[in-house]
Amino acid sequence: MTLHVTKGHGTRNDFVLLDDADGAVDLTPALVRALADRRSGVGGDGVIRLVRSAAADDAAAALAEDPGAAWFMDYRNADGSVAEMCGNGVRVVAAFAERLGVWDGSGELVLATRAGVRRVRRLPSHEVPAEDGAPWYEVEMGAWDLPGGPAAVDDGGDAQVSVAGLEVARPALSVDVGNPHTVVALADLGSLAQADLTRAPLVAPAPPHGTNVELVVPLGEGPDGAGRLRMRVHERGVGETESCGTGACAAAVAVRTWAGAHAPETWWVEVPGGTVRVRVVGGRVLLAGPAELTFEADVAGPVATR
Amino acid sequence: MTLHVTKGHGTRNDFVLLDDADGAVDLTPALVRALADRRSGVGGDGVIRLVRSAAADDAAAALAEDPGAAWFMDYRNADGSVAEMCGNGVRVVAAFAERLGVWDGSGELVLATRAGVRRVRRLPSHEVPAEDGAPWYEVEMGAWDLPGGPAAVDDGGDAQVSVAGLEVARPALSVDVGNPHTVVALADLGSLAQADLTRAPLVAPAPPHGTNVELVVPLGEGPDGAGRLRMRVHERGVGETESCGTGACAAAVAVRTWAGAHAPETWWVEVPGGTVRVRVVGGRVLLAGPAELTFEADVAGPVATR
Repeated sequence: MTLHVTKGHGTRNDFVLLDDADGAVDLTPALVRALADRRSGVGGDGVIRLVRSAAADDAAAALAEDPGAAWFMDYRNADGSVAEMCGNGVRVVAAFAERLGVWDGSGELVLATRAGVRRVRRLPSHEVPAEDGAPWYEVEMGAWDLPGGPAAVDDGGDAQVSVAGLEVARPALSVDVGNPHTVVALADLGSLAQADLTRAPLVAPAPPHGTNVELVVPLGEGPDGAGRLRMRVHERGVGETESCGTGACAAAVAVRTWAGAHAPETWWVEVPGGTVRVRVVGGRVLLAGPAELTFEADVAGPVATR
Repeated sequence: MTLHVTKGHGTRNDFVLLDDADGAVDLTPALVRALADRRSGVGGDGVIRLVRSAAADDAAAALAEDPGAAWFMDYRNADGSVAEMCGNGVRVVAAFAERLGVWDGSGELVLATRAGVRRVRRLPSHEVPAEDGAPWYEVEMGAWDLPGGPAAVDDGGDAQVSVAGLEVARPALSVDVGNPHTVVALADLGSLAQADLTRAPLVAPAPPHGTNVELVVPLGEGPDGAGRLRMRVHERGVGETESCGTGACAAAVAVRTWAGAHAPETWWVEVPGGTVRVRVVGGRVLLAGPAELTFEADVAGPVATR
């Protein structure tokens, strides 16, 4: 048995992609782990199966939301567990859908996920940063919220974060973008570089289900009128990663909140794995960034037969 | 431009393999790094180009040693630097040579490397452990030596090793198998498991060029008359790895030395990435283990054009 897969990444968040239009692949946890293994498999942070929504039980809720969501993004973590969604993964799926010819890159790709419908559009080339050779996609990430309410806005935050190797002077702001984040501003890029994220930052008061922590340094506004910030992220239960889509959104929301009423709507967010663009439009947030398909592979033998 | 590559591993030491019979590929350090990158490339501990010795300048010394060494193993570390040789890599190259049809798996594959000629044979199936589905190859690794001489043998060692998280009671033995190793025996598997190898063990006296450190637990002799041991390894300049070919050889040499005159010639060595077999035949050592080719890939775009 041979399995044909495609490998791709978005800002170095990487995935093994399976073209499974008719739902014929039995994607067992053991097969996911075998494919995601970086030494004995293909390697990735997760495995994504693209399947017709009609052939995927888990697409029901998204189909009820929008019957036009013809394709379902079946996302699995590298450990074999089922996951709801992944912001960077949606972009890579969009590039994959284009390669497969199930989307022509125009208009909207309406994607069913376990977290509901995600709408994706390909950015026109004049919106893509000149240095990036990869196509960019923008994903509607949904609503954001400040759990600390107006008091947190007035105080500049509603939590305290302790990071190894750093004195953190400012309060941190809790931001919910479907999952929990705690964003704290540092004084300068030197502090950002010296933060030790090999250990999880301590957050007080401790959120009941844990939180993702973003360390951010605002870098002002550029000639394009957009804001810019650099960040590092410690993902809940994972550790430091090179990119976290919801984390970039939360960071932009927090910095925009701190900047006040006249802050830009659009933010360039530099993560260790690259740059993404976040737009905060009213109560919703949109994430844009590159997606690159790196290779196609025929996987045989013990990996494919799991 | 598209580059066709094969991915393989031996006891989870993994490599990107290039079929380049005529030496047409310009394997720049940038291309090696791009291919070896685990997120934006194919991913591996190293990149190996298999090229006719006649088309490889660096094969000259091996060809002088044996003019029959028709194929050259051009090994590069993941950081793009040139490396001499890699014990686990030789087995994966042998599997690759079989797939390419440049070796039929019988007799000896005489391979040119920057460290001279390496002779490889495929083990007959009755010598391969029953649980392993992959083919096994045996590689002549060359001469071994105890730099501490007879005094080290009499004293059971010639060095002291300090490992975080452990009390080490016994002296350690220095073993040279082309590169330097320091082997220390622990009391039991619990001690082996609890050793903290995130920091380099301290060796006294400190070897001038550093050393690889093997922690070993001898497990006695099996019904097949062969010895067995389990080990973990801290590779000089790298950190803990799941497998180190020369480390397995050094570990078997040390345990056999400690076991005395009637010790077995053959040792099964359990490394974190799997099991290998070491034979200590007079002053030479042979390493056998599995090699698996996991997938073939067409790499396009920014990776291949570097």
